[in-house]
This record gives sequence, structure tokens and C-alpha cells, in this order.
Amino acid sequence: MAEMTDAERRQELGQQLRVDSIRMSAAAKSGHPTSAMSAADLLAVLVDGYLRYDFDTPKNPANDRLIFSKGHASTLLYSIYRAANVISDDEMLSYRKHGSRLEGHPTPVLPWVDVATGSLGQGLPIGVGTALAAKYLDRLPARTWVLCGDSEMAEGSVWEAFEHAAHYDLDNLTAVLDVNRLGQRGETMVGWDLDVYVQRARAFGWHAIAIDGHDVEEVDRAYTEAVATSGKPTLVVARTVKGKGVAEVEDVNGFHGKTLDDPDAAIAELGGLREIRIEVAKPEPGEPYRFPTETLELPRYEVGSEVATRKAYGEALAALGTARGDVVALDGEVSNSTFAEIFAKAHPERYFEMYIAEQQLIAAAVGLQVVGWRPFVSTFAAFLSRGYDFIRMAAVSRARLSISGSHAGVSIGEDGPSQMGLEDIATFRAIHGSVVLHPCDGNQTAKLVAAMADVDGIAYLRTLRPATPVRYGPDEDFEIGGSRVLRSSDEDDVALVAAGITVQEALDAADRLAEDGIHARVIDLYSIKPLDTETLLAAVEATQGRIVTVEDHWPEGGLGEAVLSALGDAEERPRVIKLAVRGMPGSGKSEELLAAAGIDAEHIAAAARKLVRQTVHTA
Amino acid sequence: MAEMTDAERRQELGQQLRVDSIRMSAAAKSGHPTSAMSAADLLAVLVDGYLRYDFDTPKNPANDRLIFSKGHASTLLYSIYRAANVISDDEMLSYRKHGSRLEGHPTPVLPWVDVATGSLGQGLPIGVGTALAAKYLDRLPARTWVLCGDSEMAEGSVWEAFEHAAHYDLDNLTAVLDVNRLGQRGETMVGWDLDVYVQRARAFGWHAIAIDGHDVEEVDRAYTEAVATSGKPTLVVARTVKGKGVAEVEDVNGFHGKTLDDPDAAIAELGGLREIRIEVAKPEPGEPYRFPTETLELPRYEVGSEVATRKAYGEALAALGTARGDVVALDGEVSNSTFAEIFAKAHPERYFEMYIAEQQLIAAAVGLQVVGWRPFVSTFAAFLSRGYDFIRMAAVSRARLSISGSHAGVSIGEDGPSQMGLEDIATFRAIHGSVVLHPCDGNQTAKLVAAMADVDGIAYLRTLRPATPVRYGPDEDFEIGGSRVLRSSDEDDVALVAAGITVQEALDAADRLAEDGIHARVIDLYSIKPLDTETLLAAVEATQGRIVTVEDHWPEGGLGEAVLSALGDAEERPRVIKLAVRGMPGSGKSEELLAAAGIDAEHIAAAARKLVRQTVHTA
Repeated sequence: MAEMTDAERRQELGQQLRVDSIRMSAAAKSGHPTSAMSAADLLAVLVDGYLRYDFDTPKNPANDRLIFSKGHASTLLYSIYRAANVISDDEMLSYRKHGSRLEGHPTPVLPWVDVATGSLGQGLPIGVGTALAAKYLDRLPARTWVLCGDSEMAEGSVWEAFEHAAHYDLDNLTAVLDVNRLGQRGETMVGWDLDVYVQRARAFGWHAIAIDGHDVEEVDRAYTEAVATSGKPTLVVARTVKGKGVAEVEDVNGFHGKTLDDPDAAIAELGGLREIRIEVAKPEPGEPYRFPTETLELPRYEVGSEVATRKAYGEALAALGTARGDVVALDGEVSNSTFAEIFAKAHPERYFEMYIAEQQLIAAAVGLQVVGWRPFVSTFAAFLSRGYDFIRMAAVSRARLSISGSHAGVSIGEDGPSQMGLEDIATFRAIHGSVVLHPCDGNQTAKLVAAMADVDGIAYLRTLRPATPVRYGPDEDFEIGGSRVLRSSDEDDVALVAAGITVQEALDAADRLAEDGIHARVIDLYSIKPLDTETLLAAVEATQGRIVTVEDHWPEGGLGEAVLSALGDAEERPRVIKLAVRGMPGSGKSEELLAAAGIDAEHIAAAARKLVRQTVHTA
Repeated sequence: MAEMTDAERRQELGQQLRVDSIRMSAAAKSGHPTSAMSAADLLAVLVDGYLRYDFDTPKNPANDRLIFSKGHASTLLYSIYRAANVISDDEMLSYRKHGSRLEGHPTPVLPWVDVATGSLGQGLPIGVGTALAAKYLDRLPARTWVLCGDSEMAEGSVWEAFEHAAHYDLDNLTAVLDVNRLGQRGETMVGWDLDVYVQRARAFGWHAIAIDGHDVEEVDRAYTEAVATSGKPTLVVARTVKGKGVAEVEDVNGFHGKTLDDPDAAIAELGGLREIRIEVAKPEPGEPYRFPTETLELPRYEVGSEVATRKAYGEALAALGTARGDVVALDGEVSNSTFAEIFAKAHPERYFEMYIAEQQLIAAAVGLQVVGWRPFVSTFAAFLSRGYDFIRMAAVSRARLSISGSHAGVSIGEDGPSQMGLEDIATFRAIHGSVVLHPCDGNQTAKLVAAMADVDGIAYLRTLRPATPVRYGPDEDFEIGGSRVLRSSDEDDVALVAAGITVQEALDAADRLAEDGIHARVIDLYSIKPLDTETLLAAVEATQGRIVTVEDHWPEGGLGEAVLSALGDAEERPRVIKLAVRGMPGSGKSEELLAAAGIDAEHIAAAARKLVRQTVHTA
């Protein structure tokens, strides 16, 4: 190809990417070839002239990052991999087949895919995270390129990304917007009115350039301008045609996510199969910045004093940040409530304020962990529900991520139900490969925060608003998957299983029960996933299978169901009374609300008494 | 007050609202008085001159709607209620006390509160829903006024609302933005740069006006302009001072969500207690438009044919719309996948395309139901996770809402995990008061769709991508809370409990087991919440407590745990083998993925065999 100009070569490469996208979809009998075809020229210029990426060291922080926010254009990405010689034609044609690394939407099963996409509007906010990492942590000239579809611009998360990228001066971030006008079922709200996107981007503080996305020279100039722009991110708004190059489907509605009727004819129309190979430029070698560290000195709380677990979270995280240079923190404008502010004060260079934008909060953390940073994210447990799709997708991304939700349950008191995390155990348990922790005291919290940093997956820590008694010594160790038996005897009649705020209630209930001659075993099940089945089985055996679980959470999917689930297949199944919040709470004092929900000491004792009586009668 | 000018009266009213906000917070020893004080003048002018609202008929569609998106300014709302004479001074001072209707953040426990707020960034997208209802359904000149805080402008959901409100020409929607500059822990990203908000709003198609939010004459002119603006919604960008009127806290960081140190001095500084009473103007009387109806003729599918439950959803919904004029539908740009398009074609005036903006999708539905419309919302089950905080809050709003999530589980096949709803049963079960349904055939789906329209709360329907065999006749009735025993005998050894795609697998497994002489009872547990405990208990008794549950969902919080939860407190507890998706799926054919997840007929039969053998040995 020596005699070709840059433009000619890139045009040819674009056609090859189209042809290969059609071949893949035809072989798979599914896929989104027309969505790949609109963006093919944009990507041809990018990988031929701009992307700096070493396929042999994909996690090298010096590499540019390429995120396909429109993950359904996966064939375009995979056709680039073939052009770059990192997958064979055979592997390319295994697209969407069971066991293939080339899934319907990109996932990190492939080493060059940093994050899973396919839930729209996530790529750009995640790109904010990778750009933050490069600029402020690794301190390398790596650039993040995000390919966005125009349909996904309707997602609010995209505008969170726009605002945060500008706020953090991310001139190392370029978004390439493939305005092919057509969504899954019709035209977008904006259509081909490129100026609307330009005006919006500018109003959010970006540099924006409108171009013809099939004119490779215009694309080239836009990328040059993006790279040269300092102080702000750049949006390249590219007018494109869905299905470009094949007359039958060009700009025709109704061909989203459909294979072409006659792939061979389409390939012929595009000029046939090509065997262009590209040499993607490698990045300048560069060592990422590393923060200095000291030895770990977790906070130590005196037994018998009181501290809120949310405060212990902040203090432990700050200590962990001193000991580990890879730990970073993000919070959603409530750092004085979650106490992430303690970390922010101790390690301002490793703290990112994400304001009230929980989707961007989670997404940035997903981006930060791509090259090995260990993000800790915090906000109210209730508001993590705002970023739930991002957490779900973080699991598909195989992300390593620690999340803390404060203000769990009715124990928060006066603020009322909008601020109460009452579904967080259920939702985090249902995240693939997650860890769910709910400590009841400060020292336990500190140890678990340190342990979270080594979890290979998504770890969730549920913390409390009110101060709780410190019951464990600062030298006691707590492992993920463990529990603590706080009270037991050889003649236990019933086991009370609690976590967080209900641990003290369970202990108080045990005192009341003792007055009636009922011996209650009390278990602090601080690790809800994974959980300590062995200790529960021992309790079943000791108590003739009488268990009361008590949680400041809805009855569904929480502590009680976790216990039932762990014991459901056991030879001896306990009878489990599940105490949980069943009515919609209002405002009130913490104690009033615990009582109203039937999860305070009095109600626990009553449930246990009834259970013991019933089972004695029926035994 | 006869001798006062409008401006003077409104200034005085603003001071009263401040004073009362301080009194409430002082009595409660908590609350957000400074956030109320910044917006007091904005609201004084609104309720004195613009709001048209009949407190005696709060659900009258002719009423304007007033939504406090910044719900933490609840004292401002309640102080208006006192000024309007609908609550007493005593009740006002019960703020945040246990049992009071005046919760920390507004909820519909008060008849004049349409929707709960307190999770920021929700009021405006919900206001899009109430404005859509007024303009396109009720067809009345009712206006929606939304008070927004500036911190919440960082939420992407707000920009979804901006785009949709302009797209639907909602000139009956006015957002009042209280730019007091200070969030919970510091300044917002924008600060007092009003022009940034103006430019953004304009780029999203709104009319925007910047004013001094403490100059009641400027406020008055802005509202007049908003009301006069046709064809587009209006944003009033008001520069305000947090804590306005009390020097100690005016524009001082660190006073968010804090009571004043010396409330008496603050009240004195504001000119003392006032007893101004306002007469809020009533709306012009008007009858809402009602759509004509015909008799209900649900689709009928022939037993033995095949249809996807998602398609049955669309066909049943269209039929329901013919029979019920109050039924409306919304979809997130996937109506050709969820089959909401069938409704859209049949009833275009009652269909709202919400594009790829799932937060706005749910929020609009919450807004539509305020005056009694019955919205049905659909998108992929996986993408409902994007709107989860809105669904959580919809429950606090006591909303009546039907939601359908299609493309559940690994059975979708090639598209891969980003598109698979694998956590939706868990997340919807954990919504307060919810109903969770998962039909396996077309006729069952149709009956359940009709039943959902009468649920007093949030009803969720999980549908499947692939076609499934029609097994129930079109005249069979299915109630919420029911189940179907598909196979049973007097000598059942084990019960297989399934729903959706796994029902056929369970039946096939029963065939295989029969070959080994094992009798399997097969239960279609289509109603997962509430569930049919009686039928399960009968199965426990019949099978000596041997149950295999099988679901195309993660193991946590789904069908299996629902069954365990229902039986956990029973006298006889079954041994439950829970089959569910445990590894992260990839792409592949539906059958391949069901097999790989261990939830196909073969794995069910193997689990049942093992369970029967084990329990025979140990019995």
C-alpha cells in the first residue's frame, strides 16, 4: 500500500472494517452491522493515525484507552483487532458463538477491552474515570477516546460526564459522536442537527467540532484539533449514515440490530474482502506516578466508647490511603456525612469530588480501576440505587471496586424514607461476585475497610448514621466471610442473628430473654456475602433449629434471606423468624423507628419467646 | 394587609416562611432551614400570585402541580401550608416527629404532596410526567411548577428532563432554580454563574430567564414571562443566598442541614413571627378529557402454538388500552423489542416515547399516575436497573405503576450479559409493596397484564425474549398471588418450582425423572411476590420436603429465596436445592446458555435425583 495516500489507505481500511462487520454478523446470524458501518471511517482514522496502544501490554497506563460506549458496534471493534493482527480471521468469525471471547457486546474477556459496554450511556462517564487516572494519578499523556452513539445522548449519565470532564479540565478525553440519526426504532430527538450537540457540549464547557464522519480528511483534522486542545475535553460531532456503503440499508429505518439480507452482495458492493493490516502506534514509554506510602495504622477505638461506623469508615480509609498509594476515594457531595472527607483532607491528590451525580460516581471508579487504582466510593446507601446499572455493569467489567453506603435503614431517624437505605443488601447481594459487609462497631469497620482493598470484585460496606458502642478490641481481626458469636452457652434455646444496628438490639433482647430463663445465642453476621455457614449450622444444632434474624432492611433479599439461603439445603433446616422493616417508615427518633418496624430488643425478644414456645409445643 | 403593595405583601410572606422554617427546625432539632430560606421569596410570589390550586380537591387534574424537587426544603412547603390555612401552627411544629404527617422530606402522607422527593434530581423528570398528563391526556391548562436546587443540576436525570420537556413542547412546565451556590459540603461546580444554566437550558430547547431570586418584582416578571411563553418550557434561574435574612448563616458554608444556633435571635432579625394568611387561587373549573372505551378482548393464543411473553405483553396492553381509557404506555426506545409498539400503534395519543432515558421513563410514569392515569412502562429488564432509584422513590410516593422488563435472563442468547436481566426479581422484590410476576406463556401473560392495572402499588412483569409454548387456554384465569401445579400425583417424590423460561425445562426434567421412576410435581410459580404459600406447603407435605427451585436469575433474592422465605417459618421446612445462574454468562444460543448455567432440564433432573437419593439415605 506504499503508493496510497493516508486518506486512501484509511478509506480502504474503513471499507474493510465494514466488510468484516458484515461477515461477522452473517456468520453469527445476529449483531448490529449497520451501527458498525456508520462509525467505520471514524475508527479507521483513529486506529491508523491517532491511537497509541501496545496490544502486548494492555494494562500499561501509558496506553491510550479506547472505549466503545456504543457497545453494540462490537463487530467494528473486533474487525479492528483483526486488522491489528491480534485475532485471526477464524476467531473473528466465532463472534457471538458460545465460548468465544468475541461476545455480542465487548467485555474484558478480551484483554484489550477495559470495561464492558452494552448498557448505553456508560462509556463516556467511565472514560472520565480513565482520563482522571491518566491526568491526575498516573500523570502520563495517555488519551481516552470514547465512541458514542447519538441515541445514547438521551441518557442523563452522558451529561454528568460532560459536566465532570469539563470541571476536571480533561483535555486528554475525546468523545467521538457517531450521529447516524437512527436509533433502534426510529429517529433520535435531535436527528442530524449537529449544531444542537455542539451547543450543548459548549454549554457544558467542552470544545466541539462538527464534521462529516465519512470524510477521512475532515475526521483527521478534527482529531488533530482535539489532541491540540488544552484545558478542556473535545467532542467530535460526526454526521454519519447508518449502514453506510450498502445502498439497501443506508439511512433506512428498521435495520438496527439486523443482519443484512444478502451479505455477499453487500460485501461486493463495498469492494470485496480486504487484507489490510495496520500497525497501531505504541505510546511513548512512561512510568506512572506512584504515591509515597507509610505503614498501616488503622484507627483504634476504645471498647465501651461510641463511634459511628460511617466515621470509622472515613478514618480507616484515610489510614489505608497512607499505607497504600493505590487507594483513591470518590464521594457524591456528601463526604461530610459519609466521612470520606477525612480521606480527602489526608490525601487531597487522590480524592475526587463527584458532586450529586451517582452514576458518574460509580463510572469514574470503574474507569480508575482499569489500570490498577483501588477506588473507594461512598454516598448514602439509598442513593447508590441511582448508580445501580453502573454497578451491575461493573461486575460484567470484572471491576475491582469498594463501595460504602452510609445512612442505612430506619436508624437514621428524622430524615425519613427517601434517605434510608432499605434495599441495599438485596441489591448488592444480587451483583455477581460481590462481597456484602455490615459492621456494627468501629474497630470491625476499620478491619473490613482494609480487607476490602484486596477483594477481587465488588465489595460493599453498609454503614450507620448513629454512633454505636465499640464492642471489639482494636487488635481483633475480622475476615470477609466470618462472623462473631457474641453470646452462647451449652444450653442455647434460640439464636439471634443480627448485623449493624440490630446487634445491640439482639444483645439487649438476649438479656430480656435470660430473665425468662431462655438462653439466646447472639451472632453478629457482619459478612452477609459470603457468609459463615459453619457458625450458622452450629447454631442450628445447638438451638434445635430456632433462629430469629433481625435486620434494618426490607424483608426481601437481605440478611434473613441470606441465612435461609445458606441453610436451605442443609440436612437440618432451622425454623427462621425473620424480623425486618415491613411498613413504610416515616420520620422519628432512631429508637422510635426501630420499635415501629419491630426490630428492636423488645420485638426480638417477643419473637424469640414465641418461637421457643411454639417449637417446644410442637416438638 | 389592604394597604400593602403586592411586592410588600410578598416580601412579608417570604419572611414569614423563613421564620416558620426556623421555628420548625428548632422544634425538631433537625432539618434544612438555610435551604428553605434561599427559596422563600421565590415561593412567596408563586403561591401569592401564580399557583392555582384547590386544597380541598388535591387530585383535581385542573390544579397546578407544585413539586419540591429539593425536598430537603420541606419546611418551606409546610410553612406555605400554614399560610394557606390547611395545617395548624401546632401541626406545623410536629415537623419530623414520629407519627407526624410532616416528614423530614415531603411524602404523600400529606394529601397535597403528589410525589415524594428527597432523592435529588427527581422532581423535574416527574414534573415532565405531570405536565405531559395535563397537556396531552387531561388536556387542561394546569401548570407544573418545580422548585429545583442548584446542587441537583449535577444529576443526569435533570438533563433527561430538560431534553424530554422540550421535545414534548411542555410550555405548561416551569422550573424554578434556586441558585444558592452552596451544596451540602461546599460550592457547586457552577457557583453563581447563572449564565451557565441559561446557556445549558437554551441548548436543550428551553426558554430561560436569569433573575435575582430575592427581588420579588423580578420574580413576578419572570413568572409572568414563563406563563406567557408558548411552545417550550421555561427555566427561571434565580440567584439566591443560602440562609438569606440571617447574617450568621447567610452564604456561609457549613450550615447545610443544620438548625440555627440561636433561633430566637434569627426570628427577631427576620422581623419576628407573622400571621399572614394567603388565599391560593383556585384553578378554572375544567373537566379532564376522557378517551372512549370498548369492551376488553384480550389476545387469545392457541394451546400448543408458540409466542414470546414480551409479545403477549404488547398485544394484551393494546387490548387493555382499548377497554380502559386510563391506561397509557411509555417505553425507552425499544418498543419494537418490548412490543409496546403494538400499544403505540393502537393508541398513539396515549403512548409516550421516552427514548434511551430510563430515569425519565420511570419518572414520567410517576408523574402521569398522580391524577389517576395508569401508566405501563417497558424496557429491557436489565435497563430498568438504570431507573432503580426512581422505582424506590415511586414506592415512597405510593405510586400506582406497572412496569414490564423484557429480555430476562440468559435465555436471550447471543447479545450477552449486558442485555440480560439477572437481578430484576431481587431488585423488584425489594421495592416496598411491590408485586412481581413472571409468566411462562402468552395467555397467562395477557391475564396478568390486565390484573396489573388494578394493583395499588408497583407491579412488575418479567417477560422473555424467546417464544415459549402456549400451555394455558385463553379462558383460564390467573390471579396475582397464585400459581399452577402443572404435574402432580399421589406419590410425588420431589417438587420442581419454576417460572418463565424454566417452566418448560422443569416439565422436561419431570419426564426424564419419570423414566427413573421418580415422580416430580411441577409448579409454575408465576407470582413471585406475593406467592402462593399454600401450594408450596402442600408440595412440601406431598414430597417429604424435597424442593428444587430453578430460575434464570442470580441466586440472590430471586425465586429460590422467595420460596425459602415463604417456608422458612413453616413447621415443616423443605430441603431446597436452588438452581440459578452462578457464573457470568457470555454469548451463545439460548439452550447453550441455559445448559451452561445449570438451569436446563438435564441439570434440574440431576439435582432432583440427587436430592431424592440423599434424603432417602438420610431419612
